[in-house]
Amino acid sequence: MVKRVSDAVKRRLPRYYRRLLSLDEAGTESVSSKELGALLGLTASQVRQDFNLFGGFGHQGYGYPVNKLREALEEILGLKRAWKMVVVGAGNIGRALAGYGYLGGDAFRVEALFDVDPAVIGTQVHGLTVKSADEMVSFINENNIDIAILTVPQEVANKVAHLISSSAVGAILNFAPVKLDAQENGPIIESIHIIDTLMSLTYQLSAKNITKPR
Amino acid sequence: MVKRVSDAVKRRLPRYYRRLLSLDEAGTESVSSKELGALLGLTASQVRQDFNLFGGFGHQGYGYPVNKLREALEEILGLKRAWKMVVVGAGNIGRALAGYGYLGGDAFRVEALFDVDPAVIGTQVHGLTVKSADEMVSFINENNIDIAILTVPQEVANKVAHLISSSAVGAILNFAPVKLDAQENGPIIESIHIIDTLMSLTYQLSAKNITKPR
Repeated sequence: MVKRVSDAVKRRLPRYYRRLLSLDEAGTESVSSKELGALLGLTASQVRQDFNLFGGFGHQGYGYPVNKLREALEEILGLKRAWKMVVVGAGNIGRALAGYGYLGGDAFRVEALFDVDPAVIGTQVHGLTVKSADEMVSFINENNIDIAILTVPQEVANKVAHLISSSAVGAILNFAPVKLDAQENGPIIESIHIIDTLMSLTYQLSAKNITKPR
Repeated sequence: MVKRVSDAVKRRLPRYYRRLLSLDEAGTESVSSKELGALLGLTASQVRQDFNLFGGFGHQGYGYPVNKLREALEEILGLKRAWKMVVVGAGNIGRALAGYGYLGGDAFRVEALFDVDPAVIGTQVHGLTVKSADEMVSFINENNIDIAILTVPQEVANKVAHLISSSAVGAILNFAPVKLDAQENGPIIESIHIIDTLMSLTYQLSAKNITKPR
C-alpha cells in the first residue's frame, strides 16, 4: 500500500504532524496544500505529492480535513502506541533525554538509563536509577525495548553500538559525533550531530562576513 | 569566488570535514573522490561537484591531498577562529551544551548561561555562574557573542528568540520543538528537533513492522 518513501519525506512527516497538531488544537477544520506548504516553506505541489504517497487524504478544491489528517499522520508515524526507550550514557545529554517529556510522555518512554561509571551507577536521574552497562543487553531483550538512545563519548560509540545491535532493539538514536557502522538486519540508525549543525552555522557566518560585515 | 551553496551542501561540509580530520590523523595522504564518497555514502561525482563549488582542490587522477583539503575545509567552515556562544535556558539540555567540549573546546566557547528561574540563577554549571535572562541582550552585545543556543520550553521559544534577535548575535541554534519566525536581517537560524528525529524512527519502525515483524 505504502510506496517507497525517500529520506526527505521521512524528515518532512514529523513537521507536517507538528503543524497539523497546532492547527487542530487551534480549531482549524481544513487546510489547503498551499496554506500548509506556506507554513512549512514548501510548495503546494510538494505537499500534495507527499500526501499522495500515503493515499491522498484530500478532495480537489476542498483542502485537507485537519483532524482526519492529523489522525492519519499519528497512525503513520506510529504515535498511537508507546515506544519503550533506554538511554545509554548518563552524561549531561543522556540525563537531559532521560527527562524528555514532550508529547505528554505518551509516545516515548525512557525505561532505563545505563552507564559504565561506578560513581554514577545507582544514582537517581528523573526518577530512574542508573544501571550498569553490563545489564544493558539483557534489559533490552527482557523489556522489549524499541529504541536505544546513544550518548556515549565518540571514542567508544561504535563499540557500544555493536553491543546494542546484538540485542533485539529496533532502532538507535545516535548523539555521538561519529557515523555508526550500519549492520545488515541491524537496528535502524538515525543520528543527531550537534557539532555538525554548529559547523553549518559557522560556515554561514563566515560566508556572510566575507560579503557583508556586520 | 564562492558560488551559491545549497542547504544540502551546507549539511555535507561538516561531514566531509570530520572524515578528513580522521583520515589526516590516521596519516592518510591522499583520498580519491570515489573513496571519500564511499566513506560518506555519496557518489564520486557528487563529491567532485561539491568541492568544485569551492575551487576544486584535486588534480584529475591524483585524488585529493588530505591535509590540504582538511585545512581548506577548516577555513571554509570558520574553524580557524573561536566562536563565542551563550546558552539560553539552563535546563538539562542547556546544562549539557554548556559543558560541550568537542574539538578541544577551541572553536566553540560557551561564555554564559542564562535562565529566568531565581532558584537556578547564581548556581554553577561547568564552571559558569547561571545569569539572569534580564542581562542577556546586554551581555551578548558587550561580549560580541556570535551564537545563541536556545533551549527554553516551546511555549516561550519564539518570544525569547525575538529578544535574542534584538541583540547583535549572528546566529541562533534552536533546540525548542518549534519553527522560529525568521526575521529580515535577523540572525541565521538552524534547528535541532530531537522529537522529529524520534518520530522519523518510529515511522520507520512502524513501516518495517507492517512488512516484516521482528
